[in-house]
Amino acid sequence: MLVVMETAAPKEAVDNVCRLIEQMGLTAHPMPGAQRTAIGVTGNKSQVDADRILTQPGVREIIHVTKPYKLVSREFYPDNSVVDVGGVKVGGKEFIVMAGPCSVESREQTLVVADAVCKAGAKILRGGAYKPRTSPYSFQGLKEEGLKILAEAREKYGLKIVTEAIDTDTIEMVADYADIVQIGARNMQNYSLLRKAGRLSTPVLLKRGLSATVEELLMSAEYIMAEGNRDVILCERGVRTFADHTRNTLDLSAIPFVKKASHLPIISDPSHGTGRKDKVLPLSRASMAVGADGLLIEVHNDPANALSDGPQALTPDMFDEMMVELRAMAPVLGRTME
Amino acid sequence: MLVVMETAAPKEAVDNVCRLIEQMGLTAHPMPGAQRTAIGVTGNKSQVDADRILTQPGVREIIHVTKPYKLVSREFYPDNSVVDVGGVKVGGKEFIVMAGPCSVESREQTLVVADAVCKAGAKILRGGAYKPRTSPYSFQGLKEEGLKILAEAREKYGLKIVTEAIDTDTIEMVADYADIVQIGARNMQNYSLLRKAGRLSTPVLLKRGLSATVEELLMSAEYIMAEGNRDVILCERGVRTFADHTRNTLDLSAIPFVKKASHLPIISDPSHGTGRKDKVLPLSRASMAVGADGLLIEVHNDPANALSDGPQALTPDMFDEMMVELRAMAPVLGRTME
Amino acid sequence: MLVVMETAAPKEAVDNVCRLIEQMGLTAHPMPGAQRTAIGVTGNKSQVDADRILTQPGVREIIHVTKPYKLVSREFYPDNSVVDVGGVKVGGKEFIVMAGPCSVESREQTLVVADAVCKAGAKILRGGAYKPRTSPYSFQGLKEEGLKILAEAREKYGLKIVTEAIDTDTIEMVADYADIVQIGARNMQNYSLLRKAGRLSTPVLLKRGLSATVEELLMSAEYIMAEGNRDVILCERGVRTFADHTRNTLDLSAIPFVKKASHLPIISDPSHGTGRKDKVLPLSRASMAVGADGLLIEVHNDPANALSDGPQALTPDMFDEMMVELRAMAPVLGRTME
Amino acid sequence: MLVVMETAAPKEAVDNVCRLIEQMGLTAHPMPGAQRTAIGVTGNKSQVDADRILTQPGVREIIHVTKPYKLVSREFYPDNSVVDVGGVKVGGKEFIVMAGPCSVESREQTLVVADAVCKAGAKILRGGAYKPRTSPYSFQGLKEEGLKILAEAREKYGLKIVTEAIDTDTIEMVADYADIVQIGARNMQNYSLLRKAGRLSTPVLLKRGLSATVEELLMSAEYIMAEGNRDVILCERGVRTFADHTRNTLDLSAIPFVKKASHLPIISDPSHGTGRKDKVLPLSRASMAVGADGLLIEVHNDPANALSDGPQALTPDMFDEMMVELRAMAPVLGRTME
Repeated sequence: MLVVMETAAPKEAVDNVCRLIEQMGLTAHPMPGAQRTAIGVTGNKSQVDADRILTQPGVREIIHVTKPYKLVSREFYPDNSVVDVGGVKVGGKEFIVMAGPCSVESREQTLVVADAVCKAGAKILRGGAYKPRTSPYSFQGLKEEGLKILAEAREKYGLKIVTEAIDTDTIEMVADYADIVQIGARNMQNYSLLRKAGRLSTPVLLKRGLSATVEELLMSAEYIMAEGNRDVILCERGVRTFADHTRNTLDLSAIPFVKKASHLPIISDPSHGTGRKDKVLPLSRASMAVGADGLLIEVHNDPANALSDGPQALTPDMFDEMMVELRAMAPVLGRTME
Repeated sequence: MLVVMETAAPKEAVDNVCRLIEQMGLTAHPMPGAQRTAIGVTGNKSQVDADRILTQPGVREIIHVTKPYKLVSREFYPDNSVVDVGGVKVGGKEFIVMAGPCSVESREQTLVVADAVCKAGAKILRGGAYKPRTSPYSFQGLKEEGLKILAEAREKYGLKIVTEAIDTDTIEMVADYADIVQIGARNMQNYSLLRKAGRLSTPVLLKRGLSATVEELLMSAEYIMAEGNRDVILCERGVRTFADHTRNTLDLSAIPFVKKASHLPIISDPSHGTGRKDKVLPLSRASMAVGADGLLIEVHNDPANALSDGPQALTPDMFDEMMVELRAMAPVLGRTME
Repeated sequence: MLVVMETAAPKEAVDNVCRLIEQMGLTAHPMPGAQRTAIGVTGNKSQVDADRILTQPGVREIIHVTKPYKLVSREFYPDNSVVDVGGVKVGGKEFIVMAGPCSVESREQTLVVADAVCKAGAKILRGGAYKPRTSPYSFQGLKEEGLKILAEAREKYGLKIVTEAIDTDTIEMVADYADIVQIGARNMQNYSLLRKAGRLSTPVLLKRGLSATVEELLMSAEYIMAEGNRDVILCERGVRTFADHTRNTLDLSAIPFVKKASHLPIISDPSHGTGRKDKVLPLSRASMAVGADGLLIEVHNDPANALSDGPQALTPDMFDEMMVELRAMAPVLGRTME
Repeated sequence: MLVVMETAAPKEAVDNVCRLIEQMGLTAHPMPGAQRTAIGVTGNKSQVDADRILTQPGVREIIHVTKPYKLVSREFYPDNSVVDVGGVKVGGKEFIVMAGPCSVESREQTLVVADAVCKAGAKILRGGAYKPRTSPYSFQGLKEEGLKILAEAREKYGLKIVTEAIDTDTIEMVADYADIVQIGARNMQNYSLLRKAGRLSTPVLLKRGLSATVEELLMSAEYIMAEGNRDVILCERGVRTFADHTRNTLDLSAIPFVKKASHLPIISDPSHGTGRKDKVLPLSRASMAVGADGLLIEVHNDPANALSDGPQALTPDMFDEMMVELRAMAPVLGRTME
């Protein structure tokens, strides 16, 4: 249920309605917008006494939401949510590029790549310290040592950091270092992890699962928001289909769908979405053109010897070329890139 | 097998090699390129006496092609093929938009839509006279009457015409009227129809099947080219996956893949690819950005009452807006649009 | 629309209703059942004057069918349809095995295999004379020569013959030789071919397309039945999914679904459905257990040198073992096998 | 790498080889078989000094395993693994049925269902106390209270219990109550959870993920076994495809594939695999026929009012009918059912 307040409703009126909602055993989620405040109501399994709320001062109308997601819905919050990552704003006019190696393999590799992507114009450094790998015998990441290397790169190049948390035991430590905590595709429906991410004060990057519908992606974001963390960035990263010319099938239509259904920002990951470096540049352009708020790109200084996902990593030179092309496209599409 | 001639090889040398190939019981496909001529050899089930060819004057090298497709391969013909549709060039620098109703429903509807798409800048009018429908009880098209209406629209607005042929009995009649004969997704592996299309002198638009791999699409184009028709335009139109927010999943990564593997032009059909009109505009932009040579777009003056596929048809106003946006993007992407 | 007659309604009453339906510009399809006759009505695009029919003598009720398929629906014809193939009854109590080589490669190979499958208990010999192949350079079948070889095998071993027709130009010739004309997966939505199959007096085996829903399969059967041919046998042969341990994913749940929705018989093709000979035996058992009316099995005397689909062909010994196992299972599942 | 011992090799020889492997910094997994002992070696990222091992007394040969999975491989352990669940043996000759409600909703409901499935012949009671739900607002299970109810049912009816663990925080508590700890489809690649399951002494039921290949399923089992827990039971429960007549597509070919590639037992879950109660019975028969070691079936005394997954739950009567049919089939397929 969604309570829509009058345009002129004062803060006291909003607080009053929230108090009433809580008294009814429900949870109130006030969402201040540019025009008016809406108050999301969750916890109502059955019919709620909506009349009691409707008669409160400052209440304009009550919308009974039928979609399974509420807090992530654009009906709840009609403006675009802009997630502020220590000053870097994801979901606004600026097109944000996050780039870096798949895994943090060593201090030297990370700093070399960080330097390169920073110079090319990336704002956020990606890199995995905890790696979910199909095989128990594959490289599983440098763990906390990797997080420290990322922090050093942040210090040195003024980049923000996005890195993945893979379980409830370590997510808090990851959040201590990261500017954005990533929930990977394999964990998109790991609800315990989502709930814990919802209790962080760090923004969360939530990747679409390999066979998740867009509605399931939004429901997983709902898990995070329902715990109180509103800073959720979604990510389309390709789905599994019969098509075999790419590793996954990047489903770009998901981006305008999410933009219409939800207020949350969404970025695109053409590196995982295609799994082939020569497809990353064209799909990056297409991602910007379709309306994504940014990109997540794998860059490696020595892809042939990468410990994971080498075939999809751009070299710094290829990344540079990509940024040049995107910068030329941005103004035509109403976006900015520094 | 591919015979690559010297840069300076005269026409006589090429003719000589072709003659020899034919004497060996094989078929020669000379492909004159900007730099040199290559001669595709088909019909060789087993090992061919390559040495005899290699010793002919003007022959530089012989490449044993291991890919299952030959004539469609970029190894056979390194430049981009440009298909000339009565002066409208598909596959060149210009980005070509084909637009019109799903079905030709009446003379009036067709002329109204033709007028609108022509004014907005489309070069080719699409419209189905023969409709492959899932149900035998659905509207099956106006047949030859529909072709005549399309021809009248061509006359009146100076547009070229693309329309679908659905069987071997009627493809020749369709080709009598059409500037491009379309082979639809359901017929992508109707090999008898492909062979007959290969004997036409009209360009062919070949749509990817609903669950066809890109390699299978190229193999179907090979069927057409093997019969002698080199004017093949490919079309990505979405594949069937589990994703349910769009009718099909438009697989834009197929476009750069085809561009690398083949010399043939490829366009995108975001109308069928998404099945939802509000997704057509963003996916059209993305199609141009990813490298497509053009678009196939459904436009209807009254989508609510369309006899087929109304939910995915743009109104003339929406189409106009799309063309304005594409025209702004084109120069940044190295394309032209009049 | 379905007109249900009284149990005791005489033939004259049925004829009278059919005449009236035809006078209304519609088509009547009388379906005599064990209990009563139902008359399917097709051709009604809009509301029909049902009252006029309801008041005729012998009419019990009128059912407005909302499903997109009519003639194939179990609502139209509540009993199981049994397709009589020259005395071999498909869809009855007997579990019917059709077996033979993928392609008719030579007279000798065909007779050797026919002999083997006949001895093991197959009732119908399969073998392709016209082969739809992904590549134009692959073996395309022996064509009419192949049909003659099949006819000779029929003569010699008393088997019936099922063989594929791939286009409208040759389907009649195929029907001249075949006891069952097969429409392959790639042609499931080749509507011109379906219509022509509908005008044959030969039974038709219709295979599910690689990415066809079960409803689309039923709609394609509707095309055949709408033309007057009621002898349609459906076939589940695997669909295309991401799973890569088999060539296709045999969707056995389609079989009980079809059995409930339709009166038509349905068989299973585990050879194409798995593409791997060591999976054919277990999936054959599962097909019988799930309720299929029979099997279509590839058997080759020398799989390693088969001109097509060798990896999925059973040897005669493996086929024999399969038949022994099925024969043991049949009585438990209420089926018979000679 | 796999070290195969001589048939007659004494325990001392095995211990000696294990000691040597550990000295080399690797991990030894002795697998005593009926014929001989094999010793799996894991931890070897690069080439190992195999010669040193080969020269030890009692060693017959060394097999370099190229498949990505090792401990789960049938090459490591050629016999069928039989998982002993407190006397109920999964993977042996007996066909084991696990049945019960999707969720433990109340003490009364659970006891009623337990009574019914016990009488019908089920050996293991299923029931979710922790429920992974797509929506944060759906019923999430009774948690420990639910586990206590299951334990009471075990006491009362002599059934074993299988119930799901959804995170690393609660898996140990679940294991305190359960006879088998289930890892659900959504958590198949939750590697932290798999590792913790690998350190339990309780058998684990690992369900295939919605879009997991069979190889990925085996790799996830490898995570569990690599931690020391060898009692892993696999479960095919349907994959996500375009087919819409069932909720998922039950991929029965996975079962013979797993049986060949691995020594682990595998059961089938036609309740989730089809999502429709009227498909459960035919697919249960097919699962037995294809070679599954057992079934996981949802049964509810009042499906219309179930808090989760009502449409796929059998009534006790339907379950009873299913058991009667399976009991009739079992001897023909070489299985036993009490």
